[in-house]
Amino acid sequence: MTDPALLVRDLDETELLARVFPLLPPGEATDVGPGDDAAVVRAPDGRYVVSTDVLVEDRHFRRRWSSGYDVGRRAAVQNLADVAAMGARPTALVVSLVVPGDLPVAWVTDLARGLADATSPVGAAVVGGDLSGGDAVVVAVTVHGDLAGRRPVLRSGARAGDVVAHAGVRGRSAAGLALLDARTAVPSDGAPGASGPFAPLVAGYLRPWAPLDAGPAAADAGTTAMLDVSDGLLRDAGRLARASGVVVDLDRAALEPDVAELADAARALGSEDPEGTALAWVLSGGEDHGLLATFPAGTPLPEPFRAVGHVRALDGQGPRVTLDGHEPAVGPGWDHFGGR
Amino acid sequence: MTDPALLVRDLDETELLARVFPLLPPGEATDVGPGDDAAVVRAPDGRYVVSTDVLVEDRHFRRRWSSGYDVGRRAAVQNLADVAAMGARPTALVVSLVVPGDLPVAWVTDLARGLADATSPVGAAVVGGDLSGGDAVVVAVTVHGDLAGRRPVLRSGARAGDVVAHAGVRGRSAAGLALLDARTAVPSDGAPGASGPFAPLVAGYLRPWAPLDAGPAAADAGTTAMLDVSDGLLRDAGRLARASGVVVDLDRAALEPDVAELADAARALGSEDPEGTALAWVLSGGEDHGLLATFPAGTPLPEPFRAVGHVRALDGQGPRVTLDGHEPAVGPGWDHFGGR
Repeated sequence: MTDPALLVRDLDETELLARVFPLLPPGEATDVGPGDDAAVVRAPDGRYVVSTDVLVEDRHFRRRWSSGYDVGRRAAVQNLADVAAMGARPTALVVSLVVPGDLPVAWVTDLARGLADATSPVGAAVVGGDLSGGDAVVVAVTVHGDLAGRRPVLRSGARAGDVVAHAGVRGRSAAGLALLDARTAVPSDGAPGASGPFAPLVAGYLRPWAPLDAGPAAADAGTTAMLDVSDGLLRDAGRLARASGVVVDLDRAALEPDVAELADAARALGSEDPEGTALAWVLSGGEDHGLLATFPAGTPLPEPFRAVGHVRALDGQGPRVTLDGHEPAVGPGWDHFGGR
Repeated sequence: MTDPALLVRDLDETELLARVFPLLPPGEATDVGPGDDAAVVRAPDGRYVVSTDVLVEDRHFRRRWSSGYDVGRRAAVQNLADVAAMGARPTALVVSLVVPGDLPVAWVTDLARGLADATSPVGAAVVGGDLSGGDAVVVAVTVHGDLAGRRPVLRSGARAGDVVAHAGVRGRSAAGLALLDARTAVPSDGAPGASGPFAPLVAGYLRPWAPLDAGPAAADAGTTAMLDVSDGLLRDAGRLARASGVVVDLDRAALEPDVAELADAARALGSEDPEGTALAWVLSGGEDHGLLATFPAGTPLPEPFRAVGHVRALDGQGPRVTLDGHEPAVGPGWDHFGGR
């Protein structure tokens, strides 16, 4: 147990890394792990998938809501989902971490535990990192994956007639964020999300889960296009539509179970239109990290994919997303850069 | 030419990326470049080398001294050097970039040009990235390299009797930083480092150069241990000594040309002991990004390595660095984390 009063500024970089490295178990693909100028990772199929994502304090998380463990889990999961969305399995991560001097060392070791807990179960590992001081916490993760001979699944392969399917949760992270926001506005008696009927939604925001096995499974099943839904279903479906030159038509009825599940939370927050609020979370909420994929009609969908729409040919109005054939009546979603 | 008045906050993430991606030429190893959930990079020898390094505004650079181009070059070079230090050739980089809203867009596109100019000549490319808003600029780069069948060169293989050799510049970056510091304290009439007899030293700090070919060449020549000198010769030699369980004895006479070259700058800065100041820069100055390597005695040193000392067996006082057999009389070097 790290002394909670021990701060980052009390240690030098070497001492801090000495507390972090032992928390990071080696991965199945690791030849040389942390501690040298670089790590060496195996890439048995002669290629590797690589992606990077950055989390910035007070943009992507707040320290009063998210523990170091939560941030570590989130940073890992959002990166792992990018690998899965290519049809690959995650193998190795490196992490650049910027920390203020007054951050407790325990926050950093909790972050390492969160990273380890999200990566170890899928056979991936943190193989290297860098630490720097700074005024706000920044966690930049780069993730790598192995395609095991699969063709990488791009966003650009969707064809008219394909089924649009989604794996993972829809709108939970946005609902969880709204609940945390409301609790902050009207302080309650417990730690945010620690208990109560909506605790799973709050956890969905703080510690998102991604259906990582579904990515390679979709590739094996013949998915034509796929991407990670990090910025909201509408926004990310729009990216797939533009990359593929098609119209993605979502099916409102297919999203009804999600809307029904989240309407109670919208009601509890005082929404005058709980179903509308829940639908907005489902369509525009970011950071759920599900996978959106298209499959040729008739393809048996691998678990846990569920059909949520169809791909239509362009009709003169350009690539876009429709809901039951019409322009959706909610905003486009989350912009990580400019905020909502 | 980007309008200098156009700020980051005037664009959304997609618009900003659309200005950056065209500045990043594809690399020789790139299968899938920027724009999808992840890139795909070839790893012909079934492994890849990977390392990450982060630069933080006002910790590692100041915007009034360093242009976006300078920071891009520096971020690339310090990462490329880590790959070279393993005996590998750089292939691909990904970049996570945090930018304040009031940063000119031209600063970001200049950064991309700096990254491209440092990576393209060695056949490497930026294959992906992420952008976020934040209060200070943070540039987190992850670099990958190809060993082409070579054994990765670790820090731990130095043996008593080995020659210690260095490739690259020594102390120039620290001298350049001291010159910039002095010009700021006593404002001069020109842009820092733009001209004058010491401009090459200032450039050595702003736009460091690393002997990237020397890494694989050292591996091919049979180097027993190697690392990138980013935190000062003494500090990094100490890391090699500890990892290998040896004493690294540096030869003061071998460093004399560097001391002589930098003493004029120390004199111009008013040092009462110009040779001593120059020696401190050579021994303790960070961010030169040369390579320190050990070779079995009698090995012909590949260019541009120069012998700077010998490896001695442990003598009861533990792994350490000595200068002509004695404890060096200057500090240990640069701590990127806590500062100097």
